[in-house]
Amino acid sequence: MTLTIGIDIGGTKLAGGLVDEHGTILREGRRDTPAQDPAAIATEAADIVRELAEGAPADVAGVGLACAGFINAEGTHILFAPNLAWRNEPMQERLSALVDYPVVIENDANAAAWGEFRHGAASDADDMLLVTIGTGVGGGIVSDGKLLRGAYGIGGEIGHMRLVPGGHRCGCGNRGCFEVYGSGSALVREARELIASGTPLAAGLSERCGGDPDRLKGRDVTAAAEADDPAAKELLTDLGTWIGEGVASLGAVLDPGRIVIGGGVVEAGDLLMQPIRAAYGRNLIGRGYRPMPEIVAASLGNRAGLIGAAALAADEARR
Amino acid sequence: MTLTIGIDIGGTKLAGGLVDEHGTILREGRRDTPAQDPAAIATEAADIVRELAEGAPADVAGVGLACAGFINAEGTHILFAPNLAWRNEPMQERLSALVDYPVVIENDANAAAWGEFRHGAASDADDMLLVTIGTGVGGGIVSDGKLLRGAYGIGGEIGHMRLVPGGHRCGCGNRGCFEVYGSGSALVREARELIASGTPLAAGLSERCGGDPDRLKGRDVTAAAEADDPAAKELLTDLGTWIGEGVASLGAVLDPGRIVIGGGVVEAGDLLMQPIRAAYGRNLIGRGYRPMPEIVAASLGNRAGLIGAAALAADEARR
Repeated sequence: MTLTIGIDIGGTKLAGGLVDEHGTILREGRRDTPAQDPAAIATEAADIVRELAEGAPADVAGVGLACAGFINAEGTHILFAPNLAWRNEPMQERLSALVDYPVVIENDANAAAWGEFRHGAASDADDMLLVTIGTGVGGGIVSDGKLLRGAYGIGGEIGHMRLVPGGHRCGCGNRGCFEVYGSGSALVREARELIASGTPLAAGLSERCGGDPDRLKGRDVTAAAEADDPAAKELLTDLGTWIGEGVASLGAVLDPGRIVIGGGVVEAGDLLMQPIRAAYGRNLIGRGYRPMPEIVAASLGNRAGLIGAAALAADEARR
Repeated sequence: MTLTIGIDIGGTKLAGGLVDEHGTILREGRRDTPAQDPAAIATEAADIVRELAEGAPADVAGVGLACAGFINAEGTHILFAPNLAWRNEPMQERLSALVDYPVVIENDANAAAWGEFRHGAASDADDMLLVTIGTGVGGGIVSDGKLLRGAYGIGGEIGHMRLVPGGHRCGCGNRGCFEVYGSGSALVREARELIASGTPLAAGLSERCGGDPDRLKGRDVTAAAEADDPAAKELLTDLGTWIGEGVASLGAVLDPGRIVIGGGVVEAGDLLMQPIRAAYGRNLIGRGYRPMPEIVAASLGNRAGLIGAAALAADEARR
């Protein structure tokens, strides 16, 4: 029995788990993220490690951190994080000083891809792409059984491939990124604009937010679509089309054998997955003369990052 | 001394070379491509092999083919070729029956990337991207020292990443591909449109084609730009900007440590490379918080494919 601990460190919380070699989480632990204090983040992480290791049914072989930031090529430092005070933060060294286990660190989206690859919806593929649709668009790439990290450790930032020249401004400073067309935020933006336009098409959506577009949430759109609201269904089709088109561009470049779609919006099921598959099939290079990969929903939910980080620690321990 | 033979099979010619372990071509051989006859293509290739092997200064360890088509994951068949009559063509078996050496086959752009990686402008990088600007936009990706082939062998088709939704129609059937904005053909299209518009700006370009835009060639634009023609310089800047923006999207996904620009248009030198670098630097995700890769011109010219194919055969022989 190989046990490792994975911790997903996001902008608001640390979510840890004691994970076995099948990717099963045996115990979990959580803390709020002291986002502005890198030393305190490491202390909280060490605290979770101690809590989870205590009374574990076997020795803990290592700790993996999934961090919401850019990790350097050596896997020692967090170069930069948009939502936490990490700037060239020596995270591996800092946590190693606080716990008795080997520590590996990885970008959170990469770790999630590794989780789905090792123990989730792509466990039978060698080349896979994870696309996570949340507030933004994240992702990770496994190529020939290895995580694609790139020369500087920053590979897989698929949400910042540009889809529209001169398009909407993105949080990264650029315009037209995949993320501002294919995310949950894009869905909400479009739904609010539709309501604000005054079209009678949006009457059902308008009712769900008491006539105030600013109060509309992504799950209101999904709920309306599930209740057969035509405008909400159109909005999900538009979102899925953008996602499918973006993924088709990635497909031309990477040729994955399995494409896994994750993130909260995936709860919309076929209302979103069907237009993703249709747009992918309509836009992939070489269609008709090549095998088509399966596009499936993620299976590890929001635990993919911690399970993937634990799996990376287990892989490291096996070396 | 390890010698291998590389043959680049394009739509109009087969170009072969006897190549040593440093990527130096010792002898060359050429044939016209009997594009509509797969059996005849193999016969011509076998002919080149015999010609080059005869009297070689050492044993030939293998043959590598760089083919202008999609190669399957197993490296045995050409699934499809846009300009040759290859449809699920068992090329490896077919040539193996005609020559006494082990045969490897690879997509021509992938082989060119491998050539630049092993013996050219990226020989000191582990993660590189080759972008070849010709009639179209081709390319190849090396990730962590390995050619990125993808699940079905079709990876690296970067020219068909979409840059513009609803943009110009591409030869692949889609619209808005990188290839219809970042290629030599795009340069000519834009130059011809500029002349046809009747703007006095294009007077110099118009003179170079005797007032008939259809007679203008890409090298006319490059020559005009080198002679300081303002419209021609603008056109090269526009082309370089599209290329740099496309490559920035690829940079977000792949994070290469070296970007190599190849193809005939590169002869324009800094008139093209400077806007490529500027657009890349202006559009890359995380700029300011991450190392920037070098963007350099290819060093193997149009021999990259055959040198790369020979290197793949040498790598295979070493296994």
